[in-house]
Amino acid sequence: MDFRPVGFILGFLILALAGAMGVPALLSLQAGDGEWFGFLASLGTAIFLAGILILSQRPERIELSRRQAVLLTCLAWSILPLMGSLPLLWSDLGLSPADAVFESVSGLTTTGSTVLSGLDEMAPSLLLWRSMLQWLGGIGIIAMGIAILPFLRVGGMQIFRMESSDRSDKVVPRANDFAKLLISVYLGLSLLCAVTYAAAGMNGFEAINHAMTTISTGGYSTSDGSVGHFQQPLIQWLGTLFMLAGALPFVLYIQMLRGRPYLLYRDSQVRTLVAFLLGVTLLLAFWLVFAQGVGLLDSLRLAAFNVTSVVTTTGYATDDYTLWGPFAVVAFYFLIFVGGCSGSTAGGFKIYRLQVLAQLFSISEKRMITPHGVFFARFGGKPIDEEIMHSVASFMMLFVSTIAALAMALGLMGLDFQTAFSGAATAVANVGPGIGPVIGPAGNFASLPDAAKWLLSLGMIMGRLEVLTLAILVMPEFWRQ
Amino acid sequence: MDFRPVGFILGFLILALAGAMGVPALLSLQAGDGEWFGFLASLGTAIFLAGILILSQRPERIELSRRQAVLLTCLAWSILPLMGSLPLLWSDLGLSPADAVFESVSGLTTTGSTVLSGLDEMAPSLLLWRSMLQWLGGIGIIAMGIAILPFLRVGGMQIFRMESSDRSDKVVPRANDFAKLLISVYLGLSLLCAVTYAAAGMNGFEAINHAMTTISTGGYSTSDGSVGHFQQPLIQWLGTLFMLAGALPFVLYIQMLRGRPYLLYRDSQVRTLVAFLLGVTLLLAFWLVFAQGVGLLDSLRLAAFNVTSVVTTTGYATDDYTLWGPFAVVAFYFLIFVGGCSGSTAGGFKIYRLQVLAQLFSISEKRMITPHGVFFARFGGKPIDEEIMHSVASFMMLFVSTIAALAMALGLMGLDFQTAFSGAATAVANVGPGIGPVIGPAGNFASLPDAAKWLLSLGMIMGRLEVLTLAILVMPEFWRQ
Repeated sequence: MDFRPVGFILGFLILALAGAMGVPALLSLQAGDGEWFGFLASLGTAIFLAGILILSQRPERIELSRRQAVLLTCLAWSILPLMGSLPLLWSDLGLSPADAVFESVSGLTTTGSTVLSGLDEMAPSLLLWRSMLQWLGGIGIIAMGIAILPFLRVGGMQIFRMESSDRSDKVVPRANDFAKLLISVYLGLSLLCAVTYAAAGMNGFEAINHAMTTISTGGYSTSDGSVGHFQQPLIQWLGTLFMLAGALPFVLYIQMLRGRPYLLYRDSQVRTLVAFLLGVTLLLAFWLVFAQGVGLLDSLRLAAFNVTSVVTTTGYATDDYTLWGPFAVVAFYFLIFVGGCSGSTAGGFKIYRLQVLAQLFSISEKRMITPHGVFFARFGGKPIDEEIMHSVASFMMLFVSTIAALAMALGLMGLDFQTAFSGAATAVANVGPGIGPVIGPAGNFASLPDAAKWLLSLGMIMGRLEVLTLAILVMPEFWRQ
Repeated sequence: MDFRPVGFILGFLILALAGAMGVPALLSLQAGDGEWFGFLASLGTAIFLAGILILSQRPERIELSRRQAVLLTCLAWSILPLMGSLPLLWSDLGLSPADAVFESVSGLTTTGSTVLSGLDEMAPSLLLWRSMLQWLGGIGIIAMGIAILPFLRVGGMQIFRMESSDRSDKVVPRANDFAKLLISVYLGLSLLCAVTYAAAGMNGFEAINHAMTTISTGGYSTSDGSVGHFQQPLIQWLGTLFMLAGALPFVLYIQMLRGRPYLLYRDSQVRTLVAFLLGVTLLLAFWLVFAQGVGLLDSLRLAAFNVTSVVTTTGYATDDYTLWGPFAVVAFYFLIFVGGCSGSTAGGFKIYRLQVLAQLFSISEKRMITPHGVFFARFGGKPIDEEIMHSVASFMMLFVSTIAALAMALGLMGLDFQTAFSGAATAVANVGPGIGPVIGPAGNFASLPDAAKWLLSLGMIMGRLEVLTLAILVMPEFWRQ
């Protein structure tokens, strides 16, 4: 395999991250928070590494084979978080390498689990860097979800390969244009989110940070109280709306710009996600009203925000929902797994996979009744083939096994079952908070042993790579010529 | 649909259960434990109901269509446990209907969860009835797994349809012969187990009861201390061996009688189960030695017995393994799901399904590397088709969703997460004990609210019917002509 195109592109990605480090460096100098040196040192290191890669790996043609694309994707999601951890490692926070890497991985993968507390008094440049990691991670995830994973046939993503290549033929003529439109949409949504947050009562810094971590369904906040710090109901409803916006297929926004807004609300994945969120929100609001005696409007707001936060894999909280009684605890456990739409910033199992599995299930049942009947699976009105169903089932299996294995490894380190299992799930599904007193929405990952933090960092990266992408690397077939 | 063949056969099944009630009735009279009246009243009720069904539902021909087979299977696993609960309900134990039905369902489905304590002083006739429920349930499960589920194509069981029909053509000419051989094998293994238990130190009554609940992978004991009551290492090793014997495909024993013993140790499902048990046992023994400071031989015996007990879905315990430290707790959580072989008395996800999913996964990964390659899935050396992989994936989905839904419903009743989730899993996988202080191996289901007991009873029946069989009943296609 020719590693040069991989190294070359990786160099440019590191260079982009280095450029991003300039922003908090400037903020640090302007705000006088004393963190500028760490950012400049990181920026220098990143530029140095990027330079080596770009100069030494220059390929004849910048074209990626399937194997090179796999390798680049895996390397990018491993090395960029390491680079992103440098400003945290070299900050005045005195973080260990395990903490700094965990925080950076959790940022770029838009997971949102944190080892930091005292956010309300933290240097603004560091807060901005955390938010930027998520925001940059978010655009990276969408790009990967639209351009790379369907091409690699990861976990049924090939459904969207046909779709997006159909579209790029007809609607968006060239990949360059598509990238520009994507960035515009992402930037536009982020701006809209920031402006409305500010209008609803956040200050400018808070609004910008939260906008970046809302649209990317990341979940980092500038306060230890997460979005619960802002008691204005409007802010919480805006949060609910924009988290959902970040979890919808971004291709549909581009279609909207191209004059086809109806595709968004006709999309079966979007409809299913919205219906699911509505159903669970009403159920939990009902539970809050009748079992916990919370007022109706408050119940709706609490349920809508926190359910949307977990399902879109954002990970904000406006309340410690693990205190909402046993039904809520069990419900939130399972909500960790669901996830948003394909081609969005969300992680998790993802809605379209649940739809494909529901089809597969219905066909199996029908076949039990009418063994020689012929049944077809459909997704969004189009027939889907065997290969896609295999791929989705395969994803399900690896997703579940990865969480199980990770939970066992965490148990081996002495974590109790609740922390081990919910920690593994929240990492691989890229949600953020777990369940229980330690890593729940009111807790924090700081107290875990270093080895657990390394494992969870690996889990977050595996989740972000939809597990199957990383699993290819261990197949002997991959390395054989 | 013609309900007569269903009602007619059901009548005979109830009649058989009534006949079985005569045994503890006689024991009660002989032992003078005062429980004979409950047994006779139940026997009378059962004969009365059986008589009505047999006389009123007599069909022209005793042949079952696919739909009738589904209905019979579901009804048998619902009505027989209700009949089996009568002697418990009418005993001097003063059980509520919820308790009596739970105990009987747990018996016939060979789950082994119990609401009873004070077993060591309990009337022998009641202890014998519990053991007999499991023993009868066990033979019912094997018969269903060999004759009905493959025919209904439940969760990939169609793999064994081809196999067993191949074999019945060549080796066992008629169904009647096959049934006789099956019963001989089951009886023979039970006798062997009882004799060796007695030789190793159990008294006759204990040996017979434990033999019945070992071969059926049921797990009821005559002591609150389960098999841990017997401190003889030999008894525990014999238990390990015979639990495994109950979890192997019974078709292979019949082949053995027919002069093909090599099929047993060449069988890929058997090999995988044994390798898995060995691996997990060694891992846990290692953990017990190094993290918990237990001696090497004791560690091996403890690990082998308790791992085999959970994986074969027996549910005996020789120790409270939830006190073996966090790694063991997490490991046992996941072991609940695994299950034994097809066509055995074991429940759970089952080994062959894990093998099929592993194939499906490997094919998906290979396809990601070589998109246009052609790959075949194999099981036991033979190719398996798409339909089987669908069916297995479909089973996986419903199995997991059923456990999730049951856990949520239990949470709604106020059970804590650990109890709700492990209770749901242990019921649907027909294992027996859950995890945690309430329903763990040292605990008991007695303290749960009645509604939770009804739900768990339903969960055990759903698990025993491999969930898909019951799910057919709710498909509108099933009832349409």
